[in-house]
This record gives sequence, C-alpha cells and structure tokens, in this order.
Amino acid sequence: MLVLITYDVNTETPAGRKRLRQIAKQCVNYGHRVQCSVFECLLDAAQYRSLQAKLCAIMDPEKDSLRFYSLGKRYESKIECFGRTDDYRPEDTLMI
Amino acid sequence: MLVLITYDVNTETPAGRKRLRQIAKQCVNYGHRVQCSVFECLLDAAQYRSLQAKLCAIMDPEKDSLRFYSLGKRYESKIECFGRTDDYRPEDTLMI
Repeated sequence: MLVLITYDVNTETPAGRKRLRQIAKQCVNYGHRVQCSVFECLLDAAQYRSLQAKLCAIMDPEKDSLRFYSLGKRYESKIECFGRTDDYRPEDTLMI
Repeated sequence: MLVLITYDVNTETPAGRKRLRQIAKQCVNYGHRVQCSVFECLLDAAQYRSLQAKLCAIMDPEKDSLRFYSLGKRYESKIECFGRTDDYRPEDTLMI
C-alpha cells in the first residue's frame, strides 16, 4: 500500500535539519521524496510498522510532527499534482 | 471526503511566504492546518474543484509543488499522528 508520510520540523536549526535528513534517509528506502517534508512510500503492513518505529525514534516529539496517511493499493486516482512534480532534490532547493 | 493538501514552497523569500499564507487562508475555510505546509480539508466534489482552481492560481508552478491526496469519507482509520498533534500555529513556530 502507499503510505504518505509528512514531517514537520524546524529546519532552521542544525538538529532539525539532521532529523529531517535521517527521516528522509529511512523513507527513501521505500519510496521517494515528493516535497521537502513529504514522502510517498510503498509498504506492506510489517514494513509500515517497522518504518514507523524508526521514524518515531528519530523525531523529537516535543518539537516535531509526524503524520502517516494510508492511501491503500489503488492510490493512483487519489493523487493530483501541480507545479513541480519531479522528485524533490534537496541539492536544487537547499533550505539552509 | 477528506482531501490532504501539501504545498512545497521556499519560505525564505517574502513572495514564497506570501503564497503560503494565501494557500493557508483558502484551505482553512474547509479544514485545518496540521503542519506548516499540510492541510486537511473536508470537501465535496464541487468544493474540491473550486479550491484546487484557487490554489493553482496562487501557486508559482515554476517554483512550487502542490499535491492533493483524496482520503475518502472513512478516513479516520487511515491517519496516524505522532509528536505535536495540535493544529499548526504559525505564531508559535514562525519560520522567517
């Protein structure tokens, strides 16, 4: 199934940027980064739980917000994109 | 139905921040802001098309990315949240 993962972190701090990099590193093993803090991951139920546990261990629950949205197996018709629809490339739009 | 709207914009520029404020202003008429650039909106089909058209008119298609994810009517079980789960308050975590 497709799981959309959105992560809100203050990227103005080095620690926040580091957590975002770590979140991204985990997510891109299962899918791709479509926006700065939005990841689309193809996961089965076990992978979902495993990835969720890893991300929860990385995040700072006092400062960050992490949300998972399950879009099921037939997700293509549920998504519409406008503007830049290419994969997010941090090196192109580096937010320092 | 619940529509998740994610918006990627460089908030380091005044123009980018202005577009994000305009996007947020439209979205919060139909739902709430759950992260800096993530909105959950309850929309019928006509409202969905209308809001989509408004947001597309605000965005800069060369610079921004706007994505819509339809989660249907039975969306509660499809969402999991960790960390800060309160509504996003721009005044609390202002990113300038």
